[in-house]
Amino acid sequence: MAVSWVNSAEVLGSDLPLELSGTGNRRAVLMRALREAIRSGRLAPGTRLPPYRSLAADLGLARNTVADAYAELVAEGWLAARQGSGTRVAERTAPRTPVGRPRTPERSALPAHDLVQGRPDPSVFPRTAWLASARRALTRAPHDAFGPGDPRGRPELRRALAGYLARVRGVRASPERIVLCSGAAHGLRLLAEVLGGPWAAEEYGLPFHRELLAGQGVGTRPLTVDEHGARVAELGRTDRAVLLTPAHQFPTGGPLRPDRRAAAVDWARAAGALVVEDDYDGEFRYDRQPVGAVQGLDPEHVVLLGSVSKSLSTTLRIGWLVLPERLVEAVVAAKGEREQWSSATEQLTLADFVESGAYDRQVRRMRQRHRRRRDQLVAALERRAPHVRVTGISAGLHAVLELPPGTERSVVRAAAWQGLAVEGLADYLHPSALAPRGGGRDGLVVGYATPPEHAYPEALEALCRALPPVLG
Amino acid sequence: MAVSWVNSAEVLGSDLPLELSGTGNRRAVLMRALREAIRSGRLAPGTRLPPYRSLAADLGLARNTVADAYAELVAEGWLAARQGSGTRVAERTAPRTPVGRPRTPERSALPAHDLVQGRPDPSVFPRTAWLASARRALTRAPHDAFGPGDPRGRPELRRALAGYLARVRGVRASPERIVLCSGAAHGLRLLAEVLGGPWAAEEYGLPFHRELLAGQGVGTRPLTVDEHGARVAELGRTDRAVLLTPAHQFPTGGPLRPDRRAAAVDWARAAGALVVEDDYDGEFRYDRQPVGAVQGLDPEHVVLLGSVSKSLSTTLRIGWLVLPERLVEAVVAAKGEREQWSSATEQLTLADFVESGAYDRQVRRMRQRHRRRRDQLVAALERRAPHVRVTGISAGLHAVLELPPGTERSVVRAAAWQGLAVEGLADYLHPSALAPRGGGRDGLVVGYATPPEHAYPEALEALCRALPPVLG
Repeated sequence: MAVSWVNSAEVLGSDLPLELSGTGNRRAVLMRALREAIRSGRLAPGTRLPPYRSLAADLGLARNTVADAYAELVAEGWLAARQGSGTRVAERTAPRTPVGRPRTPERSALPAHDLVQGRPDPSVFPRTAWLASARRALTRAPHDAFGPGDPRGRPELRRALAGYLARVRGVRASPERIVLCSGAAHGLRLLAEVLGGPWAAEEYGLPFHRELLAGQGVGTRPLTVDEHGARVAELGRTDRAVLLTPAHQFPTGGPLRPDRRAAAVDWARAAGALVVEDDYDGEFRYDRQPVGAVQGLDPEHVVLLGSVSKSLSTTLRIGWLVLPERLVEAVVAAKGEREQWSSATEQLTLADFVESGAYDRQVRRMRQRHRRRRDQLVAALERRAPHVRVTGISAGLHAVLELPPGTERSVVRAAAWQGLAVEGLADYLHPSALAPRGGGRDGLVVGYATPPEHAYPEALEALCRALPPVLG
Repeated sequence: MAVSWVNSAEVLGSDLPLELSGTGNRRAVLMRALREAIRSGRLAPGTRLPPYRSLAADLGLARNTVADAYAELVAEGWLAARQGSGTRVAERTAPRTPVGRPRTPERSALPAHDLVQGRPDPSVFPRTAWLASARRALTRAPHDAFGPGDPRGRPELRRALAGYLARVRGVRASPERIVLCSGAAHGLRLLAEVLGGPWAAEEYGLPFHRELLAGQGVGTRPLTVDEHGARVAELGRTDRAVLLTPAHQFPTGGPLRPDRRAAAVDWARAAGALVVEDDYDGEFRYDRQPVGAVQGLDPEHVVLLGSVSKSLSTTLRIGWLVLPERLVEAVVAAKGEREQWSSATEQLTLADFVESGAYDRQVRRMRQRHRRRRDQLVAALERRAPHVRVTGISAGLHAVLELPPGTERSVVRAAAWQGLAVEGLADYLHPSALAPRGGGRDGLVVGYATPPEHAYPEALEALCRALPPVLG
């Protein structure tokens, strides 16, 4: 265990300087970075943090910002402050794993329970079926598959995706207007470079996306999100694009209402702008037919952004952009005509995986699994916390638990004391959004696909223990 | 066949605007783009090009620049000018493939013979051994291999590479200071972002690298290259880094002389700068032991940049940076802590491929093959053109054929008439270099690893036919 404090670079995580230079709330950004460092084991239990003055100086932050972040994380149970020995990472946040050396992500510590969304249980990767596709694809591939190829990506995969997306998501795609990339984040970078800013974005969304855009010089302006999705009437003439999650607003959970879908497309046509449709979990709808992609309404004014991160694994690094024809050349130029980014052998394997029906089977299996998880969550809440309303459950890999106004932070804190990592809605709010606008928006974002099978019931138990008691 | 002319975007290739905005000679950049478009089949034989005035206007170039480029390409045989029907892609540059639609890279046309360096014959990819490694790696992988991991890349591969590079290249590497990336170009982008400019670079080098750096705002200043490699005494105090190819100067061919290796490191220490060692073909040395990496002299002042592009395939998209410890965090930040870029399954497969000895076997097989190719080239020249001197043949995948001063362009042109794609040394010269500085530097860069086995003898025949007759 460290006796002197760790240096700031270790505390930070290396994304932090970029994030702090962005548009976010700096205290929140720092808190998130610290939580993430603790969760990932980069900061092991017992590790001593630098005095807040030092960290503030290193990061160019106000002392109060760092002091507040420390205090809040102590309150949430991530850190422990002891008289005379400074601030340390709390011992109890990682009770199950041996204490690792700091900065050895290989031996990562994990929280006892993890319901943070966005990290599907990696144990579900279909190794056997994937290897079978790899064998078929590599055996069948022409020699030129191992040499430089089309900068848009392998034609086999673009053809397979065009068919799949048309069939499953109602996307109007031809292989010619699909550009493959290294995951959705890479696709977003390319669009930022080609389109420039500013963009509009849903007031609730992935901070990583906003920060990535900010890193590319593209500022985002928040659109109010209500129970029908983003209020697209707030779109303006100066926005070059709007980033939307129409199938399943992220993270609040509803689909974008049909009239708003049409209005977003009308706006894009009139303003000469683009709708960027982040179709991050469009295949995972439980209670009715999938909501088709907005892209189908107007392929010349909507870009569909997708990846295999939710359906297969984030680690394959394959995503796609379905582009208006006029943007294909510019996106390829931004990508670099000589750089493929995604492995051709993986592209060919995925093409076979899709064409052979294995992808459909995997999506079906995942959908059943997620749905069962969701049902378990709903049942546990009905039994243990019937006063807590769950929303956003008709699709996806997460749900939102509505909390009484003003209680979110204390619930996240209580969860941490239960050894449970879970995030509040506030973690997803655009820093420029004036909250609360849509009424009480305290809530927990519960990623029910995250824990391995055996650990899920205990995680639900911990969650229920952390929830507030019935209101009087 | 097209009757109207193709539009400029098709002529261009989408990298061109970026390249034209760079520091290169614009005529040469345009010519290269046009040659590449013809070679790749993006511009099919018979396709009509836009009038030079239109293209000049579209590209923001002087009319003369475009007119000169057209005239030279007509002279080289790539284009054909017919009275009254404008300029077209010559029919004979792609005699073997059916005429495809323009802009259909899937149905690419190829020159009859291809000795352009940098494109190793893709038919040598070891499919069976690779699949065996994939099977072992995916079977053995822990579940967390399919979830988010260390932003530096999979530890299995970083460990395997650290061992391999130490053993084969004399690199002083620990897994902690290796950052995996999506090929050498991605590594170079990351270094450009972290180090800033300006850099020094060998006056002969890959235009793609210079243009990539320019695209990141990093200008390059040329260092004279003589028979002992780059004259590192020309390095200055303002250079943030120098990009060198010490094992085998690219493309002229010699190793960097030992005193210059030491001097480069001394300069980096004194100037607080870095040597960026592009170890693009360090494993392919034929006549004596491999020349060890400069990185071994001082791991804190040299970054080693490598990839599997020459040894396995460019399409795997796996490269690596061996970094000074102080740069690791910044490079990871530039890479993005949440983005892996390289597929984890491919990383695990490569780790097994290295650890199991399959990588050594592949390198050995490739070395034998390249050496045999080189010997055939040397033998053919001795027989058919004994007056042409070949240099740079003790390593690598290409050789340089020295040509009498002032003849390079006409030889490249004569080669095109033989249906042979091959490049001259001038294609690699830094645009700011005052040539000739080192005496007569006309030469052909002959990539002898490029053709498939059956096509190599004919390619050599075509080459010999294109060479100038004995000088009087």
